[in-house]
Amino acid sequence: MKTVLITGSTSGIGLGIATEFAKTKKFNIIFNGLESNGREIAESIGTAYGIKILFNAANMLDPLALKNMVQQGIETFGSIDVLINNAGIQHVSPIEDFPEDKWNAIIGINLNSAFHLCKAVWPQMKEQKFGRIINIASAHGLVASEFKSAYVASKHGIVGLTKTLGLEGAPYNITCNAICPGYVKTPLVEKQIADQAKAHQLSESEVVSKVMLVKQAVKDFISVESLGQMALFLASESANTITGTAIPMDGGWSAQ
Amino acid sequence: MKTVLITGSTSGIGLGIATEFAKTKKFNIIFNGLESNGREIAESIGTAYGIKILFNAANMLDPLALKNMVQQGIETFGSIDVLINNAGIQHVSPIEDFPEDKWNAIIGINLNSAFHLCKAVWPQMKEQKFGRIINIASAHGLVASEFKSAYVASKHGIVGLTKTLGLEGAPYNITCNAICPGYVKTPLVEKQIADQAKAHQLSESEVVSKVMLVKQAVKDFISVESLGQMALFLASESANTITGTAIPMDGGWSAQ
Amino acid sequence: MKTVLITGSTSGIGLGIATEFAKTKKFNIIFNGLESNGREIAESIGTAYGIKILFNAANMLDPLALKNMVQQGIETFGSIDVLINNAGIQHVSPIEDFPEDKWNAIIGINLNSAFHLCKAVWPQMKEQKFGRIINIASAHGLVASEFKSAYVASKHGIVGLTKTLGLEGAPYNITCNAICPGYVKTPLVEKQIADQAKAHQLSESEVVSKVMLVKQAVKDFISVESLGQMALFLASESANTITGTAIPMDGGWSAQ
Amino acid sequence: MKTVLITGSTSGIGLGIATEFAKTKKFNIIFNGLESNGREIAESIGTAYGIKILFNAANMLDPLALKNMVQQGIETFGSIDVLINNAGIQHVSPIEDFPEDKWNAIIGINLNSAFHLCKAVWPQMKEQKFGRIINIASAHGLVASEFKSAYVASKHGIVGLTKTLGLEGAPYNITCNAICPGYVKTPLVEKQIADQAKAHQLSESEVVSKVMLVKQAVKDFISVESLGQMALFLASESANTITGTAIPMDGGWSAQ
Repeated sequence: MKTVLITGSTSGIGLGIATEFAKTKKFNIIFNGLESNGREIAESIGTAYGIKILFNAANMLDPLALKNMVQQGIETFGSIDVLINNAGIQHVSPIEDFPEDKWNAIIGINLNSAFHLCKAVWPQMKEQKFGRIINIASAHGLVASEFKSAYVASKHGIVGLTKTLGLEGAPYNITCNAICPGYVKTPLVEKQIADQAKAHQLSESEVVSKVMLVKQAVKDFISVESLGQMALFLASESANTITGTAIPMDGGWSAQ
Repeated sequence: MKTVLITGSTSGIGLGIATEFAKTKKFNIIFNGLESNGREIAESIGTAYGIKILFNAANMLDPLALKNMVQQGIETFGSIDVLINNAGIQHVSPIEDFPEDKWNAIIGINLNSAFHLCKAVWPQMKEQKFGRIINIASAHGLVASEFKSAYVASKHGIVGLTKTLGLEGAPYNITCNAICPGYVKTPLVEKQIADQAKAHQLSESEVVSKVMLVKQAVKDFISVESLGQMALFLASESANTITGTAIPMDGGWSAQ
Repeated sequence: MKTVLITGSTSGIGLGIATEFAKTKKFNIIFNGLESNGREIAESIGTAYGIKILFNAANMLDPLALKNMVQQGIETFGSIDVLINNAGIQHVSPIEDFPEDKWNAIIGINLNSAFHLCKAVWPQMKEQKFGRIINIASAHGLVASEFKSAYVASKHGIVGLTKTLGLEGAPYNITCNAICPGYVKTPLVEKQIADQAKAHQLSESEVVSKVMLVKQAVKDFISVESLGQMALFLASESANTITGTAIPMDGGWSAQ
Repeated sequence: MKTVLITGSTSGIGLGIATEFAKTKKFNIIFNGLESNGREIAESIGTAYGIKILFNAANMLDPLALKNMVQQGIETFGSIDVLINNAGIQHVSPIEDFPEDKWNAIIGINLNSAFHLCKAVWPQMKEQKFGRIINIASAHGLVASEFKSAYVASKHGIVGLTKTLGLEGAPYNITCNAICPGYVKTPLVEKQIADQAKAHQLSESEVVSKVMLVKQAVKDFISVESLGQMALFLASESANTITGTAIPMDGGWSAQ
């Protein structure tokens, strides 16, 4: 059994990725998230797939809590073999009104937390000569959209961190890659579709193709299952030569 | 059963990818290559894995032969669902001495053949609302090395073709992606290691890490198995939102 | 006096760039183009700015003619110091209907001609330890649009050639860079605006912002003057450390 | 007269860029830096070129000081037309030992300060329908080197910010671009050459070509003059369609 730590894994994309890892029954999973019922969510996955789980509610803005989470994970399972930096937040505003606290929170949660966690897991990955770090970036790690200055900066930043750690990890069989999704279908997004359909007086399919997915050539959301499968592929032993990459899963967004 | 056509599949990378597809027992395989015993190679894979195969020796420089190969494949198996443009050649020379016939052959085999084959398979993929085109480009589709002007131009060119067809295929569930490998271990390369070790009076491992893989951070060759697995992933139904990408599998080459 | 050879310089972008070079009065200019009155166009620039000119109608698809043009230029002026590969054609068609002869012409004119010319000027640039090669690529050298498979492949290809020659030229103070413009205002485009305004029953400004420049954030055409100024900058002695680049001048097209 | 604000302009690259702007005699310059004699440095440039200057020692880690610097500049000169975010620091360490305070300082100085300054100058640039923001990133805004996780993350981050503001500024004739230099010759670097030559017992030219510039194909440092000229070009009225770009000036570093 290997052990995977996934931040922000009690909802949305993180939960979807955790579920794909759980299905293989080859991983202990360290769940993390701010949901008040996070522990129950984690335990229900553990029970459903017969795997061991741990839940830790570490706040991404608290470096000490992040270190403690890693330490707890290693003490519990003996190692952390795969780290998936997934937790993230967004804020949309023109630059002139962009709140400083939002900028700081986005840089802190989307970028700095990954630094702290990579640093914390590194010595043990290096020692065991195996590590897989997967950063859930975004198409916005490759290209920009207006009014998302902090998000785009944080996601480009994590792509830079990914390249650096890909190089540093090479002698130790530690790989570091970023996945750059377009729009992913999560419960949150499903609710937005319904709301926007009402607001714009459009059908839900029109909201999807003309409003939400206007930047994608493929007018389908990215599924969390396919994200999870890509993460599993990158986490495998045989993916040892894939490192420092930023892989788009974005329906053609960054190709145009 | 789906059907995959893989060019240059009677040796090296193409044969390795074909073998990974064969192992799944979910694909008929159309082999192509210039080996004089290509048919026997194809048949031995068919027999070993219990799958149907076809062999066609179409020359990549003969557009009519390429069209006929596609037609023969569709007549034999009912459809071509996955096209893997893998055939390629290389020539190394300073620009001032680069032979024009080599330039033309490299552009013709590495780039133009993909155009002809994509065009040929397109109507049927569009009709059936499913298609997966995978171009085996190279790290040289993203970055350059000196003395490889034709190869780098052809591989960047196929990355451009990949992006375009990713966009054009979006309404029809046709995806088009490029895989950009670094140095791949094939029988040809294994022989080069031995030869260069003699020539440089180095150990074989020194030849690998200091000469052949100097541009990679990871001092291992890319395995054909991992290339095949990535191709299988891109060929799957669930990879419908990955399109127009150029995915590095290059040991950190293009990250630095 | 230095000498610049600009392909496709009797109209459009090439003529605009030539005019910027002429204004400096520091370059002899070798004009090239298919306009029947090309020689008069060249001579009028020469007269207007008091510089020496040469006109050669070499066809981009005729490698021997390209070599002869370079030879004639060197014989006439003593050297070719700056080569600007600008000639290019376009054809728009879905992949399934894309004519093979159009594919071949686009690859031949937009990509292969640059190879032949770079090869031809190289020995003399190397000998004199100074050379500046500037390839007028396109935003389509970086990203794609549907129905432009040949153009996008050719422009990505020339970006690959640019990187390779940037590396090869480094020891000899030969730089090679690509400029990647978005939509440039040329007489041809001005006519298209008027035509499309009639066809779509839109005002000319609406045609520009909503149809022609939909991919640009900046709703202005790129001016040939600014292209010429960038080319002059890259051609200067002090630009010796800028090489192998693909510089977007695209109104934010490739940033999103 | 236009006004340019250049951070970190009392030494190194920033001072070099300021000098190029001063030479044109078309800009008031707002100097900024931590040198104790910063005011004298600024005044000496002002006197030498007959231009108006202002000196403000705002600390890049103090958002309020940054806002006040912008306000002082606008009050003094009527507008800030060009903002050059140049101040930056570096720290080299393997990830496992990378000090958290160094990470925070690098993200704060190299990335966050640019956000604060862009936000502060934006309303007035928007109001006057002219603005040029130039971020001095680095080749490390495009590719990575090992042991520079914070620097590479911060520089990729600022490239992301650049793209976003390029898009946001488009309706207001505000452009935002990044320049990505390789190794630049500054007094600090000159001292390092001498030190390393002693340490490695190599000649100074060997230190340059084999140690310091190993990643560049061109074995010359980038000159501050050429950086200044590129910045001037991007600052010009005619560069209005160049935006959201990251322009390498790196001797072929990122091309390979």
